[in-house]
Amino acid sequence: MARIAICAPSRPITPDLGDRAIALAAAHGHEAVVHPQCYLEDGHFAGPDEARLAAFLACANDPAFDAVWFARGGYGAGRIAEAAIAGLGPAARRKAYLGYSDGGMMLGALYRAGIGRPVHAPMVVDLRRPGGGEDAGVRALDWLGGAADGLEPSLDERPTVAFNLTTLAMLCGTPLMPDLAGHVVQVEEICEHLYAVDRLFNHVTAQLGGIAGIRLGRVSDVPDNDRPFGAEPEDIARDWCRRRGIAFLGEAMIGHYSANRIVPFGLAPRTFGA
Amino acid sequence: MARIAICAPSRPITPDLGDRAIALAAAHGHEAVVHPQCYLEDGHFAGPDEARLAAFLACANDPAFDAVWFARGGYGAGRIAEAAIAGLGPAARRKAYLGYSDGGMMLGALYRAGIGRPVHAPMVVDLRRPGGGEDAGVRALDWLGGAADGLEPSLDERPTVAFNLTTLAMLCGTPLMPDLAGHVVQVEEICEHLYAVDRLFNHVTAQLGGIAGIRLGRVSDVPDNDRPFGAEPEDIARDWCRRRGIAFLGEAMIGHYSANRIVPFGLAPRTFGA
Repeated sequence: MARIAICAPSRPITPDLGDRAIALAAAHGHEAVVHPQCYLEDGHFAGPDEARLAAFLACANDPAFDAVWFARGGYGAGRIAEAAIAGLGPAARRKAYLGYSDGGMMLGALYRAGIGRPVHAPMVVDLRRPGGGEDAGVRALDWLGGAADGLEPSLDERPTVAFNLTTLAMLCGTPLMPDLAGHVVQVEEICEHLYAVDRLFNHVTAQLGGIAGIRLGRVSDVPDNDRPFGAEPEDIARDWCRRRGIAFLGEAMIGHYSANRIVPFGLAPRTFGA
Repeated sequence: MARIAICAPSRPITPDLGDRAIALAAAHGHEAVVHPQCYLEDGHFAGPDEARLAAFLACANDPAFDAVWFARGGYGAGRIAEAAIAGLGPAARRKAYLGYSDGGMMLGALYRAGIGRPVHAPMVVDLRRPGGGEDAGVRALDWLGGAADGLEPSLDERPTVAFNLTTLAMLCGTPLMPDLAGHVVQVEEICEHLYAVDRLFNHVTAQLGGIAGIRLGRVSDVPDNDRPFGAEPEDIARDWCRRRGIAFLGEAMIGHYSANRIVPFGLAPRTFGA
């Protein structure tokens, strides 16, 4: 049984979704608490920076919790990540942090700081995803129960991270960027034109010297361009890997879809509680 | 009279637009030549990388030309910029390079390499812009005739550059990024959600320590979000400047609009031929 604190460093969720998360966690042997900040709205965000930061720190620094589960991505974690790292105490080091997409700003910052266990995993908001959304949520919950079958299938003896491509591009070169030397870097993308995906790969691969290689997750909901770009996402990934002397390692089962798998940052043990 | 070579490192133009550029240049005392590569189409691009690179190098390395004028932005210059810099010879150093938007990848790379005179300026494609598009093109041509009245009005004794915000974000941290210490950095954006503008400012300001300050140009064609972001572009710029200890210097007359002014990279002399 894990005690799970849910907060929203980026965008908000609705109370019905929070209630579903609590019930689903209970049905899988956990106790989840939704921080009321998850329901705040302030323009694009789940409350102002101060509220999102305070909620994250309250969850992370509370020794009563084993894990912090991000409610939703969108955008916002990067606005508070530096202050969040600075505000973390000893209890924060004994926790797992689960999320993805914009939440990757926080996962990357935690990983750089060597605090806790950052984990690419489905979020609360995935519960409402049609066709398997609840399975996605259960995958995160079962991982917190010690299960290994939700892990991304390509994970091997090399340290691995998983990021949304835009999020990784925005991390690169900033004080939040972890050292990824020797790592397998899995990337996924959503709602970006293919020319933007190409541009992001140019940017990111220029700054990933020394990694073990790149795996490409799902690239979904690509907007229509006024003409076809002329290359598919895998062509783009292979092209930039070749140009930069980075190994292209194939596909990864990560992305903004229900099958999105678990990628604990770094190396084994890859199950929770092990 | 300037001899102007027009090429397209990013997306193509149509022959009627090329013909208009030639005629307009002649009407303003210049001789313009459109490289046929401008009319190639290869998916998103004005021909494959090899053709865009070869055309740029042919224009830049030809001592018969005084200036290289980019036909259009879009996306593509960053795919050839490293090879372009490596292929430039002595004649390339005696030229001005005019363009903006995606062309900023090439301008930034040239500026870093100390080759020629990179100039943020309207492009051939601006001629078709409704309401003053021809004025924009004439502004670039008149600058090549020695005029100073098209210069961005805030230019002062400090070295200055101008970039599309996304382009600058993609340059940061790459081998093409110039040292901007002491510079006024003008940025503009088009077709990006305000949350993305905020994210880009986070990324860019984290990597612009030591600059003289930031000026904000036009932020145009912002797509509708599912809810208002909660801050205007200037608020965003001021917020990130404050967070990073960078001076916010006010507005700049640059952007994807007909009033887009001329910003020669660096310092005086700011007129052509001076």
